[in-house]
Amino acid sequence: MPSLSVFTDVPLAQKLEGSLLKTYKQDDHPNKMFLAYSVCMTKEGQPWVSPMVRKIRLQIAQDPSLNYEYMPVMGMNSFIQASLSLLFGKNSQVIMENRVGGVHTVGDSGAFQLGAQFLKTWYRDSQIVYIISSQKESYGLIFQDLGFSVYECSFWDSTKLCLDPSMLLDVVEQAPRGCVFVMGNVANCKLSQSQWIKLMSMMKSKRIFPFFDIPCQGLSTGDLEEETRFLKYFVSRGFEFFCSQSLSKIFGIYDEGVGILVVVALSNELLLCVLSQLMNYARALWLSPPSTGARIITSILCNPALQGEWKQSLEGVVDNIMLIKEKVKEKLRLLGTPGSWDHITEQKGSHSYLGLS
Amino acid sequence: MPSLSVFTDVPLAQKLEGSLLKTYKQDDHPNKMFLAYSVCMTKEGQPWVSPMVRKIRLQIAQDPSLNYEYMPVMGMNSFIQASLSLLFGKNSQVIMENRVGGVHTVGDSGAFQLGAQFLKTWYRDSQIVYIISSQKESYGLIFQDLGFSVYECSFWDSTKLCLDPSMLLDVVEQAPRGCVFVMGNVANCKLSQSQWIKLMSMMKSKRIFPFFDIPCQGLSTGDLEEETRFLKYFVSRGFEFFCSQSLSKIFGIYDEGVGILVVVALSNELLLCVLSQLMNYARALWLSPPSTGARIITSILCNPALQGEWKQSLEGVVDNIMLIKEKVKEKLRLLGTPGSWDHITEQKGSHSYLGLS
Repeated sequence: MPSLSVFTDVPLAQKLEGSLLKTYKQDDHPNKMFLAYSVCMTKEGQPWVSPMVRKIRLQIAQDPSLNYEYMPVMGMNSFIQASLSLLFGKNSQVIMENRVGGVHTVGDSGAFQLGAQFLKTWYRDSQIVYIISSQKESYGLIFQDLGFSVYECSFWDSTKLCLDPSMLLDVVEQAPRGCVFVMGNVANCKLSQSQWIKLMSMMKSKRIFPFFDIPCQGLSTGDLEEETRFLKYFVSRGFEFFCSQSLSKIFGIYDEGVGILVVVALSNELLLCVLSQLMNYARALWLSPPSTGARIITSILCNPALQGEWKQSLEGVVDNIMLIKEKVKEKLRLLGTPGSWDHITEQKGSHSYLGLS
Repeated sequence: MPSLSVFTDVPLAQKLEGSLLKTYKQDDHPNKMFLAYSVCMTKEGQPWVSPMVRKIRLQIAQDPSLNYEYMPVMGMNSFIQASLSLLFGKNSQVIMENRVGGVHTVGDSGAFQLGAQFLKTWYRDSQIVYIISSQKESYGLIFQDLGFSVYECSFWDSTKLCLDPSMLLDVVEQAPRGCVFVMGNVANCKLSQSQWIKLMSMMKSKRIFPFFDIPCQGLSTGDLEEETRFLKYFVSRGFEFFCSQSLSKIFGIYDEGVGILVVVALSNELLLCVLSQLMNYARALWLSPPSTGARIITSILCNPALQGEWKQSLEGVVDNIMLIKEKVKEKLRLLGTPGSWDHITEQKGSHSYLGLS
């Protein structure tokens, strides 16, 4: 008698790839192109790797003094410090006051998983999450699986063909008290000083908890400091928040998943409590995060000369992205495609809305 | 008015380190020693790294053709295949029949997290987990956090000073129908052929689901094949099971967390359903696993000459462990410590019970 399988009731899962990729795969047009890849390419059509990475990888491989013992659950401390400096600036208030810290995670998915698990248990104001981003999808599922109610909102205005700050403000106005706000690419949405103040005032009065997503600091403009300046606004207005910072993408080591869940609290004491809880979640998720990627990145960030070279290489990528956008615009113009396509080059960053349906 | 912190109610978490390490840290005896490290040391007192690892790491760093694009969610396919071959043997029945597969995970914690999440949703027979191991702790917490009832059992007989197969059989006899059995170091427990048959018959008739833990294949005896032979018994008796296989430890790259959750199902169709579900959990946990460790290990396993050298280096570690055990026993004898200490050298593996209270 053949046994009955334990897995009899398990259905084939739907692939959770974006609906765009799915549609692309189903389309049998010979000239189809997929424009939403998440990897930066070189002019030669290869995935970009910062040249500094290759250099340091070789140094690490040649270093006989390195050992490969377990890292702490929290991750590599020097990596965490270097990442925080990159995010807030070396002499930032919040670092001086010892009330920002982080847990080294397996990429940004890991950071969101960790943060969401923490909020599920310890954040009691609300179990509602708003994902405010032009790249929705994956993080919503993480919160959803943990039992949060998830709402996704974009602030791309498809008639005016731009990211519209007033749409962002509307979302905050309508959001329920105490909810969690996951905010990606907010730096690309050109808020005026008074709009920032209005945004923060509303969030503050509604006790909305911000969970920022910094997937590729510097890849919008090449100016690393400028792109995270808004974090300082939130710090100075007395916000506590989480922030997922991914570093793999800006060094071109996509296959390593080097991330950090950043925590800003009102005091060092509160921070240590939060970090201690996060550590227990991290232990159950992956015990300790993998080190190679973090080791490479830390070596670059902690050496001013290398950091300078890396920043230059990042600017090269940004220039290349702008060049591609210019070319796309020019091509559309030459083809006589109706309408203005200026919005393509007006948008900063590695991704931009084409304004196609 | 100072704001009220969002984190006001978050207490400092207890560190989940083993109680043994805690007691050790509190002890202020100047000659204290901690004997439960989980890292293999060289004669020079450094964490062991297989020499092959250094060689391959250098090769990878020097290879300009490699890119560092995202890996599939499932992980590196060649790594999965190489790991399965190591576990079951290249020409094993279950590989030929296409009904074993795996998901590349962040270490064994990742494998247990992934497996436990799957079982929570899809395993409907029971929400009871027995952890059968002489090294309890961490995995129990993963299941517990997900809402399983967890029972931990050791089969170390502290009077006879040995791992006792009959204790293992007793546990199975008392366990409830359909529960999940997490079984570590079962290969070190010298079951006779008839005891294996009895064990499997009981587990089969009670529909107990095995979840094996292979943290360091080969580190008990140096004989990789011998140490996982029992998996073949379970396959041939028609069991479906999960198995966490960690590879970081046996290559000495503890800081990489290279693991795999192995799935054996009754058919390829069932297997694909299970893997598709696991992929969605993996995506939410870490998107895709980090590649460096897996890349190194795959390069070694897929090259017969390198694999041979690596096996030799592993045997060296095993010999060194036995030597240390012999020395400990000899020292105890010379000190005139009462009792027989033969059980120290009779136990295989990188760890052994000293029989001290």
